[in-house]
Amino acid sequence: MPALLVVAVSAEGRAPAVVGVDEPVVAADDLGLTRGDGCFEGLRLVRGGSGDAASEGAVTVPNLSAHLARLQRSARSLELPDDAAGWARLLDVAAREWATGFPDDDEAAVKLSVTRGRPVPAGQVPRPTAVVTVSAMDAGSLRARREGIAVASMTRGYGPESFADAPWLLGGVKTLSYAIHTAAQREAARRGADDALFTAADGALLEAPTASVLWVPEPGLLRTVAQGANGILGSTTQHLLFDSARRAGWRAEEASGTLADLRAAQLVLLTSAVRGPVRVVQLDGEPVSQHPSAAGLTAELQALAGF
Amino acid sequence: MPALLVVAVSAEGRAPAVVGVDEPVVAADDLGLTRGDGCFEGLRLVRGGSGDAASEGAVTVPNLSAHLARLQRSARSLELPDDAAGWARLLDVAAREWATGFPDDDEAAVKLSVTRGRPVPAGQVPRPTAVVTVSAMDAGSLRARREGIAVASMTRGYGPESFADAPWLLGGVKTLSYAIHTAAQREAARRGADDALFTAADGALLEAPTASVLWVPEPGLLRTVAQGANGILGSTTQHLLFDSARRAGWRAEEASGTLADLRAAQLVLLTSAVRGPVRVVQLDGEPVSQHPSAAGLTAELQALAGF
Repeated sequence: MPALLVVAVSAEGRAPAVVGVDEPVVAADDLGLTRGDGCFEGLRLVRGGSGDAASEGAVTVPNLSAHLARLQRSARSLELPDDAAGWARLLDVAAREWATGFPDDDEAAVKLSVTRGRPVPAGQVPRPTAVVTVSAMDAGSLRARREGIAVASMTRGYGPESFADAPWLLGGVKTLSYAIHTAAQREAARRGADDALFTAADGALLEAPTASVLWVPEPGLLRTVAQGANGILGSTTQHLLFDSARRAGWRAEEASGTLADLRAAQLVLLTSAVRGPVRVVQLDGEPVSQHPSAAGLTAELQALAGF
Repeated sequence: MPALLVVAVSAEGRAPAVVGVDEPVVAADDLGLTRGDGCFEGLRLVRGGSGDAASEGAVTVPNLSAHLARLQRSARSLELPDDAAGWARLLDVAAREWATGFPDDDEAAVKLSVTRGRPVPAGQVPRPTAVVTVSAMDAGSLRARREGIAVASMTRGYGPESFADAPWLLGGVKTLSYAIHTAAQREAARRGADDALFTAADGALLEAPTASVLWVPEPGLLRTVAQGANGILGSTTQHLLFDSARRAGWRAEEASGTLADLRAAQLVLLTSAVRGPVRVVQLDGEPVSQHPSAAGLTAELQALAGF
């Protein structure tokens, strides 16, 4: 269980401020709590750092602008006010607190959540609650980067085109309603795996509950699942990695895929912002990513993604 | 916007207690807030009352045992501890506070939520947070009981059998992850309707975001959608109404149905615990429930359900 290090909150009538990590932060009727009605981003704080990142003093937030842009898209889909400047300020408050309070930590996991806030009369603009938590990197993520993970595939229930013309299904929106995502991860654990991998009703690859799936079908080619009517989330880390990989000479494509494509690939990765790209070494109990090049490619792609 | 009247909370290390309605109640890493990971029940407090109900002094909680049983089933599906006795105690604390604090109110809306609580180390039993809110009955619900509602149908995205053998999809579990439910209600409002009605990908009737659908195809016959692999929630109010209606001479069946069945019916109702059975007077912009008997049947079925 990662230790909670810093909490910063901004709510109606309250300026962005650091609060105690054990302090309650939302009222009983906050719609984030009662309905999972809100959106979030998972990010990372890195001591020092540089490159495609926003610097907050001595702290870098890798890929910050992409995360804020995705949060803006999520908020728009939920008809929540776009307050990217306010979210960035809140993040800055938390990052500075971590920078000075935990000088021995090299990196930390951040969650930036925006709820619909407490109910307002019909027709009035919502007054969101924004919460930033900074947690210590958990041992499982660090181990996953080095050793890889076992993954269990399971259906997401939806067909491959279920999200076409149905914006209320919130395809591609990173909402706070993640009960199915966590239930899938418990199911994966029950099957002896570290994470889940969702497939559509027709067997098409989708994504993991909190990560996207990438694979290397042949040398120099990187694939991930194309977004669209399948409802999957656009991955900030995958986009960053694709850009870097192309500059390094890789071809990188969005495509469709199946579990058979993963079994045949030289390398399979799950990619997310905090854990980074991690090698999938087992899929549904069978070894994958066992090509002689897999370990080296994993290290290369982790470095290209800034890990 | 219904006024929040009473809040009672029970969390790790805190006995069930009433807190201020504006007081924050959950920590920033409570999994109910960060993941919509938990379950809830909507209930009603009624001044006085009797019958198939649990009395808390001068206050009745209609159908309490059915609600607690459903919450137990939800908790089990989420692998949360079953604490029915504790939830009932917390409800009692809130009900007593309402009974004495708001003596002029005849009824109130209650939400009993149980979150997974703050993260615990892997393998340890979760320590849930339980929250009860008591709110004034909102004008919209009272008007809906008298005048009926307009409903907009829309797909839920899933196929009619999507939840078969996939317990991680949490079919039939009343989780806190309701972002799609509230997005559907916003879509309904955009279409000029008061509520949404979900259909499966093949057009089969499912349920409303926070209510079940019932219809009267012919005199003396009441139908609702059968639960199963379609993932819909079992409705406590529908079960109560079916029992009462059968005692009053109705036939009452669980079946499959389509929008065409609703258009042809003498009466269509949405049924939930707080609003009770309300007549659907418009479906996708067209009048329904316009049979000469519809108003009388609505009143009869509302009375049979205790409204």
